[in-house]
Amino acid sequence: MNDSAKSVSLGNVAILGVGLIGGSLAAGLKKAGCVDRVWGFGRSQANLDKAIDLGLVDYASTALETVVKDADVIVIASPVGAIDGLLAQLKWHAPARAVISDVGSTKTSVIQSARSALGEQFPYFVPAHPIAGSEKSGPSAAHPELFVDHWTVLTPVDETDPEALKQVADMWTTVGARLKTMHPEAHDRSLGMISHLPHVTAYALMAQLARQDGLDDLLDMAAGGFLDITRIASSDPVMWRDIFLDNEREVLSLIEGQKKILSDLQSLISAKDSAGLEAWFIKAKRLRDRLAGGKATP
Amino acid sequence: MNDSAKSVSLGNVAILGVGLIGGSLAAGLKKAGCVDRVWGFGRSQANLDKAIDLGLVDYASTALETVVKDADVIVIASPVGAIDGLLAQLKWHAPARAVISDVGSTKTSVIQSARSALGEQFPYFVPAHPIAGSEKSGPSAAHPELFVDHWTVLTPVDETDPEALKQVADMWTTVGARLKTMHPEAHDRSLGMISHLPHVTAYALMAQLARQDGLDDLLDMAAGGFLDITRIASSDPVMWRDIFLDNEREVLSLIEGQKKILSDLQSLISAKDSAGLEAWFIKAKRLRDRLAGGKATP
Repeated sequence: MNDSAKSVSLGNVAILGVGLIGGSLAAGLKKAGCVDRVWGFGRSQANLDKAIDLGLVDYASTALETVVKDADVIVIASPVGAIDGLLAQLKWHAPARAVISDVGSTKTSVIQSARSALGEQFPYFVPAHPIAGSEKSGPSAAHPELFVDHWTVLTPVDETDPEALKQVADMWTTVGARLKTMHPEAHDRSLGMISHLPHVTAYALMAQLARQDGLDDLLDMAAGGFLDITRIASSDPVMWRDIFLDNEREVLSLIEGQKKILSDLQSLISAKDSAGLEAWFIKAKRLRDRLAGGKATP
Repeated sequence: MNDSAKSVSLGNVAILGVGLIGGSLAAGLKKAGCVDRVWGFGRSQANLDKAIDLGLVDYASTALETVVKDADVIVIASPVGAIDGLLAQLKWHAPARAVISDVGSTKTSVIQSARSALGEQFPYFVPAHPIAGSEKSGPSAAHPELFVDHWTVLTPVDETDPEALKQVADMWTTVGARLKTMHPEAHDRSLGMISHLPHVTAYALMAQLARQDGLDDLLDMAAGGFLDITRIASSDPVMWRDIFLDNEREVLSLIEGQKKILSDLQSLISAKDSAGLEAWFIKAKRLRDRLAGGKATP
């Protein structure tokens, strides 16, 4: 929470989807005391009950109309694949002056959907992506500090209203996030590299493991390195299905790049190019150490 | 340390290579009090001095002959690529009754080297692989608990002397390891899958990251998932160069398998096969959760 947190007032906030991200945002906003009421929307009454029990939201309902009726800020925190449907409903149910934002992991396609769904309300739509998460999901994994010192990327377009943008920026600053503004395409390419491709890799490694003989022995022996590199394969399957389909172009091109690089490594190994391999690994280590140096221990 | 630790007596132990693995073994044996003296050998006087300062070994020298002269057990803890040279020297310098073992990450090629280098001493060579480690290396990373509750795989062959095997098994039990016996080929295939291929993947991801535009932004944004999945790219470059070259056949075939699986994922994404992707990710999550369930938090 930064010093200006107390001075920010967001009014009534409606969070559509009270899972890890939505639930953590709700909890963070309530903790910062900069909201009047936080409403939660979801399709599952059980999840909403849990979110109420955990104190993440003040009120909750499976009726979208009820949840957004008096909202000043509406945040879509559903899996990317459900954003389209929610935007179409918001066109009818959101108050005309409400700021609408999202937390989707891809931005180009969300912006396209918002532009066509919201019409003249589109300037009040602020595309955002908090880069925080966990392989865990659901309201029970939510906590108010999830975004602290993590980036939230804002990808406004020409039409985006500056006041709406400021309100969403303030909201994320309030829960401790650092802000970065990017073009939507640059966001999707960057996230493809640092998030989507690693998930592809983790899913591919798990599939390859599953095909091996003596699986029980392998599961038994798998140590720190394998556990770390496949941790994100425990992520929410629906969420990642949607992200890959949504960021299709970048993801496909990055996988192609990865296959090419694997072929380069095969060639070096086949040629017993000891110096070439060592140079590669030294360069990788140097870059990885640089990455680790700038970060708190995860 | 198990209850029988005190009753094990290994005599004088010589550790060739006092890095993370060798240094930790030395420290663990000294802590368990089941050795007379621990000698360390290395090529770098600075590393040996550090190992002495840290109390990992009692004596150290860059002269192999001095180190192994009175040894009852000799453990080769160098990178895999240096094992050949050390075995050739041990043929001349190791006491005739000494048990020789190693900690190499590949076993088939080490056994082949030992058989041809050691001749009639070969039955006293016990191939072993402690599956423990870290992306950190060198004596300063060593600690006596490194092997506790980690597997050490023994891959004896027909000629292996049962008494020598028992001594090496006792040594690893003493430092807290759990033992597993495998055929050398099965070991190399299994480790290829759970250790070597993940390292290939981490190195490939770092190479792909390095080729992207806007690298500084990417380094800035890389979050938990990317850090976890590339952590092992900080591992020792020489060690991994040697492992890939040494386990060439398995590693090449596993990389080929990985490329094939990446192509399958590309096909599902291109075909917008939502159900197929979801089924894949659910299966991966289930297997990964099973993996996590049986383990202490790394």
